[in-house]
Amino acid sequence: MAHGDGMNYAPTGKPAPVCAPGEFVVAAVGLDHGHIYGMCNGLAEAGAEIRVVYDPDPAKVAAFCERFPAARPAPSEQDVLDDPSVQLVASAAVPADRCGVGLEAMDHGKDFFVDKPPLTTLEQLAAARDKVVATGRKYGVYYSERLHVESAVYAGQLVEQGAIGRVVQVIGMGPHRLNAPSRPDWFYDRDRFGGILCDIGSHQVEQFLFFTGATGADVTSSRVANYAHKEHPGFEDFGDCTLVGDNGASGYFRVDWFTPDGLGNWGDGRTFLLGTDGYIELRKYIDVARDPAGDQVYLVDQQGEHHMSVAGQVGYPFFGQFILDCLERTELAMTQEHAFAAAEICITAQMRARRVEQ
Amino acid sequence: MAHGDGMNYAPTGKPAPVCAPGEFVVAAVGLDHGHIYGMCNGLAEAGAEIRVVYDPDPAKVAAFCERFPAARPAPSEQDVLDDPSVQLVASAAVPADRCGVGLEAMDHGKDFFVDKPPLTTLEQLAAARDKVVATGRKYGVYYSERLHVESAVYAGQLVEQGAIGRVVQVIGMGPHRLNAPSRPDWFYDRDRFGGILCDIGSHQVEQFLFFTGATGADVTSSRVANYAHKEHPGFEDFGDCTLVGDNGASGYFRVDWFTPDGLGNWGDGRTFLLGTDGYIELRKYIDVARDPAGDQVYLVDQQGEHHMSVAGQVGYPFFGQFILDCLERTELAMTQEHAFAAAEICITAQMRARRVEQ
Repeated sequence: MAHGDGMNYAPTGKPAPVCAPGEFVVAAVGLDHGHIYGMCNGLAEAGAEIRVVYDPDPAKVAAFCERFPAARPAPSEQDVLDDPSVQLVASAAVPADRCGVGLEAMDHGKDFFVDKPPLTTLEQLAAARDKVVATGRKYGVYYSERLHVESAVYAGQLVEQGAIGRVVQVIGMGPHRLNAPSRPDWFYDRDRFGGILCDIGSHQVEQFLFFTGATGADVTSSRVANYAHKEHPGFEDFGDCTLVGDNGASGYFRVDWFTPDGLGNWGDGRTFLLGTDGYIELRKYIDVARDPAGDQVYLVDQQGEHHMSVAGQVGYPFFGQFILDCLERTELAMTQEHAFAAAEICITAQMRARRVEQ
Repeated sequence: MAHGDGMNYAPTGKPAPVCAPGEFVVAAVGLDHGHIYGMCNGLAEAGAEIRVVYDPDPAKVAAFCERFPAARPAPSEQDVLDDPSVQLVASAAVPADRCGVGLEAMDHGKDFFVDKPPLTTLEQLAAARDKVVATGRKYGVYYSERLHVESAVYAGQLVEQGAIGRVVQVIGMGPHRLNAPSRPDWFYDRDRFGGILCDIGSHQVEQFLFFTGATGADVTSSRVANYAHKEHPGFEDFGDCTLVGDNGASGYFRVDWFTPDGLGNWGDGRTFLLGTDGYIELRKYIDVARDPAGDQVYLVDQQGEHHMSVAGQVGYPFFGQFILDCLERTELAMTQEHAFAAAEICITAQMRARRVEQ
C-alpha cells in the first residue's frame, strides 16, 4: 500500500497466470494517470505480457519501462494500433481523451481496458456503445476501488453468500488527498477530468450497482462544490449523490479532495453495506488511528460482530477473469453493460449536479 | 450504556446542580417513550426536582415513580397544569400528541421540554411558534443523540476550537434496533410517530445545523422505504435525506431500523464531520468489533490521527444550561429558533420524501 496521493496507487498481488506467456499481449497507450501501473500490474500478475508502450511524453515512457522493462517504446500510437500482436490496449490518458483512444483500438481489432472514468460525456458513451456493437470488442474499465481492493472483493463474496441478507443501501465515502503540487494542469480543468462525480464518483456508482445487484439507477440528487480551492475555479473539491437502483436499493456517496496531511494514507475510503440481516463496513485503505493496514472488514450479522483483516488473503480475481473474457469472448469479470451503466450514471449525476456556492 | 432497543436509553452523568434544591421544579407528563427517563435524569443531575408525574397509564406512572420516588402521581394532566409550583413540563408523549401537551403547558405559564420529534406537522409548528411569542415560554427539545452523548458534545468543542477548519459536510448514520415485540401500536402508525425522517431523522437534522453552524437548510432530496417490514404497512424502516445549509454546508443522513441482533448495542450511530482542515468521526454508542464502549472520537487533522475515548470525560452541559435559560430567560443551551428549525426541516423532508418501493 503506497502512501501519497493515490494517483500512483498500484497494488501488487500474488502472480496467478491464467494463460501461457505471450498468449495475451497488452500495449499501454496514454500514461497520464498513474493508475496505468495498477492496471498493468494486475494484468501482468494474471499472465498478460506488457509488450508495448506509447505516450507522447518520453519521460512517462521511460518511467513506465523501468517498471515494465520488457515493454517496447513505440514511436507513435499508430504504430501500436498497427502491431498485430497487440490484443488489448490499456489506457490512462486524460479522462476526456480516453474514449478516442478506445475507439481507435477497437477499430483496429483490439480490446480496450481503460482507467476510470472510462469517458466523460454521453456522446462518447453512445459512440463507445456503438463501437462495441460494430466491432465486437470490449471496452473494459478499471474501477480500481473495488477491483483492486481485497476488502471490496471479499465483501462481494460475503454479499453473494447472503451474509447480510438483501442489500438495501450502500454508502460510499471516497476522500482523496489533493497533493496539489503534484497535479498536472488537466487535473483542475473540469472538461478534461470530467468533474468530480464523473471522475472519482465513478468508483462509487460502480460499487453501488455491484453490491446491490442493480443493473441501473436513477440519480435522485447530486451536487458539486469548490469549497476551499478557489484558486482553481475549474476544480471541484466536493461532490455527492443519491441513487435509487432499478431493484429499489438506495445509494449515497460522497467524494472529496480533503484528506488532511495527518492521515497515514491518501484517503480513508469507506463503504457501508446495509442489509436486511446485517451490515458490512469496509475500511479500505487504513483503519484510522487503529491500524495503518487497509482491507479491514467489519461485519455485524444476527450472530455477532466480526472483524476480518483480509489484506493478502483474497487477491484480485478480476484481472484473470478479464483476460479469459478477452480470450474466450465471455463476460464473467464484468459485463459490458455494467461498465457502461456505471459511466452513464456518474455522467448523468455530474450533468444534473446542483452547484453549491459559498 | 444500556443495551436493548435504545428506547429506554437514559444516560447517567455526574450530578452538577446549577440551582438550589426546589429552585427548579419539573413535572413529567406523557411517558409513552422511554426517553422521558433520559430527559428527567439529565434535568435532575443538573439540579431540577422531578416533583410530579402524570400519564393515563398507571403502570407507566408506577415505573416512573420507582426511578423518581419523590415524584407525586397527579390525578390528571389538568392537576399538573394547575400546580403553580411546576415550572417546566417534560413530555415524551406519542409524537403526534406532544405539541398539544406543550401548548397547554405554555398557556399555564410553564416552560416545556419535549422529546424529539417535538411535533409532527407544520401546523403544529406554526402553533408552537405562535405560542412562544404569545406566552414567552420555551419549547425546548431533547435532541438526545447530540445533547446526551458525550462524544457529540466533545465534537462540538473540537469544531468550535477550529480543530478541522470549516465544517463543509456532515454525514450521520442513525441505525436503530427495531425490537418489534416491545413496540406499542403507535410505533407503526406513520401519523402517530410522524414518519422516520421526522422521528429519528430529527436528531440528524439538528446535528447538521449544530455542527455546521447553519441556521437553516434546504432539503435537496429525501426518501423513505419499508424494505422488510411489510407486515406493518404504515411503518418506514429506512429513510435518508440530503441538505444544503444556508451557509453552503452539505449534509446527508440515513436512518433505519435494521440493527442486527448480533450488535452489542441498539445502534451503531456514527457522525462524520468533514472539515477543510481535517475530519472527525464519532462512534457514538459502540466501536464495532473493537470496543463495546461508546463515545469514541476519531480526529484526523493536518498533524496526525487521533483517537479519544471520552466516556465519562465530558458530561452533558445542556441540562444545566437549559435550567439556567429557564430561570434567567436566556438562550445559551439552544436557541428556540434552532430547535424549531431542525423540526421544520425534518418535517419538510418527510413531506417531500420519495417513497421507494420494492
